[in-house]
Amino acid sequence: MSIHPAVDIPTLLEISPQGGIEVRSRRYEKYLGDMDGVYRDDQAWQNAVGERGTDDLVYWVDDQRYQEGPGALIVGTSTLLPGRYGEEFAMTRGHLHAVADRAELYYCLSGHGVMLLETLDGQTSAVELAPGQAVNVPGHWIHRSVNVGEEPFVTLFCYAADAGQDYAVIAEAGGMKNLVVADGDGWALKDNPDHAGYRAAE
Amino acid sequence: MSIHPAVDIPTLLEISPQGGIEVRSRRYEKYLGDMDGVYRDDQAWQNAVGERGTDDLVYWVDDQRYQEGPGALIVGTSTLLPGRYGEEFAMTRGHLHAVADRAELYYCLSGHGVMLLETLDGQTSAVELAPGQAVNVPGHWIHRSVNVGEEPFVTLFCYAADAGQDYAVIAEAGGMKNLVVADGDGWALKDNPDHAGYRAAE
Repeated sequence: MSIHPAVDIPTLLEISPQGGIEVRSRRYEKYLGDMDGVYRDDQAWQNAVGERGTDDLVYWVDDQRYQEGPGALIVGTSTLLPGRYGEEFAMTRGHLHAVADRAELYYCLSGHGVMLLETLDGQTSAVELAPGQAVNVPGHWIHRSVNVGEEPFVTLFCYAADAGQDYAVIAEAGGMKNLVVADGDGWALKDNPDHAGYRAAE
Repeated sequence: MSIHPAVDIPTLLEISPQGGIEVRSRRYEKYLGDMDGVYRDDQAWQNAVGERGTDDLVYWVDDQRYQEGPGALIVGTSTLLPGRYGEEFAMTRGHLHAVADRAELYYCLSGHGVMLLETLDGQTSAVELAPGQAVNVPGHWIHRSVNVGEEPFVTLFCYAADAGQDYAVIAEAGGMKNLVVADGDGWALKDNPDHAGYRAAE
């Protein structure tokens, strides 16, 4: 007689194009005060804090997971509100997976954004996303969502539950190598002069 | 000096609500002739072959993957055409992952379907999916897509590249425990009298 593995019960997930999952196991929210040091133009961020306060919502994430384990996937939505801080567009903190080889799918549900991508050894990429477009972020790429539109930028994401997030990697380096800045009615990449290089890969 | 890991270049994926990924690494198609033994009503399947031929397309899958590895994800679309074989609706062959604990996200892009789910030890579930609805299929669940509508049932899927598929598990058992059958204008689950129980879990 075999020992049957513990299983979870499959659950319907109602995913809103505006972000949010009706049945979820976790929600977290980021406020303007959490973004200290994220934007290069600190004065622009300070001014925004003065106008809107530190507890102004800037992005929120809903996710659903079953039990932990190498095979489990976390599914969720990320809703990044629009904004500008100096010449930079509103963005998430960004991360490398703590288990760096773990990939992550981002599928755009609404809005208009850019997935900004960099590797520890200095490769860079930027993938523009509109509804129906996606990027399967490969392992070993630091990634951050940037909202270059005027509506919330909403993505459906999926990644291995054992991946974890390393949020320090960007702050340690003085920010990502590239900034996503306003350029006429659109956006452009610009060198971040404060970027001092990433730590060596493990 | 560290050895930098090999990395893949992130790629924009254009995902059609009708199925298909513009940049893809693989496409496969299943034809009516491939579905021998899948439906309980063999005569109904034989009649369909007589009318439409063995090379009539019944479903197709586009997928995109980077390099293999424990952290890589496969992203794709599954497009299952509508149909009826006796009282049963058109469906995919179904599978358990070869690495059974691997989960899989299915997000409905268009159409109307049911994800039919069963475990080796006899648990059953069925999750109805319309556009914007999803199921994060937990590890250890055999799963099959069923089209209960009149349009193609299209899902976006995401799973670990090392998961693999065991397609034999259903055939060995005489089919899944449940059938998805027509019931008035809708669908219902019905016991499959040919189901002889699944093999023991490893």
